[in-house]
Amino acid sequence: MEQRISLVTLGVRDLARARAFYEALGWSTGAAPADDVVFFQAGGMILALWGREELAADSGVSDGGGWGGVTLAHNVGSPAAVDAVIEQARAGGGTISREPSETFWGGYSGVFVDPDGHPWEVAHNPHWTIREDGSVTL
Amino acid sequence: MEQRISLVTLGVRDLARARAFYEALGWSTGAAPADDVVFFQAGGMILALWGREELAADSGVSDGGGWGGVTLAHNVGSPAAVDAVIEQARAGGGTISREPSETFWGGYSGVFVDPDGHPWEVAHNPHWTIREDGSVTL
Repeated sequence: MEQRISLVTLGVRDLARARAFYEALGWSTGAAPADDVVFFQAGGMILALWGREELAADSGVSDGGGWGGVTLAHNVGSPAAVDAVIEQARAGGGTISREPSETFWGGYSGVFVDPDGHPWEVAHNPHWTIREDGSVTL
Repeated sequence: MEQRISLVTLGVRDLARARAFYEALGWSTGAAPADDVVFFQAGGMILALWGREELAADSGVSDGGGWGGVTLAHNVGSPAAVDAVIEQARAGGGTISREPSETFWGGYSGVFVDPDGHPWEVAHNPHWTIREDGSVTL
């Protein structure tokens, strides 16, 4: 198995609401309004939004109903950029579960939770490199 | 917010067991044995393993205790490659929650679940392009 992730699918309760949230953050998709799955090209991978029940069935798992041990992160180039993305998420209807502040690992981050309960840490990590194309290297 | 994911963190109950599972799949990390977080460079992003309780607290969320609506996918170039990765996951102690077969969307895939309950679809999608560097485009 190669060391890479091709796709992250987030299970959602209301696809139109979920799509509108990510679009309010500035993301764009070629999905038609009636499509039952919404794909966003996200750098060299893809983020998908799909009905949570369908995703559970397709994945062969039982739904615990809440958060299940996965957090995404979006790294940016400065503490000010962390603040800006957190404010964008707040304005778009996201819940800020941790306001931006300095972290124990020497960076600066905050966390927003999307309308379906999926948390995103928005982080400035001075120890990692963000390249021109948005890719991140340890 | 740029349209990209920098990091996916999987909350785990037993870090050594989780690390060993991904290493058995052929992944490698520069983490020291005593590190309390394990980072894997995964293409232009990073996969992290961290204690689930710590991740929930850091993300400002309550733990539902089970699966929480997130499934990862690993796309490969052929149905035979799907079978090979699924067999590798089975041999490494993963649970196969869906045996490989043709899918309703015209591809071929199976799903394994890692020791902490995180599902990975292993898929051949003839409609998507996998580049030389492993990146996937719609």
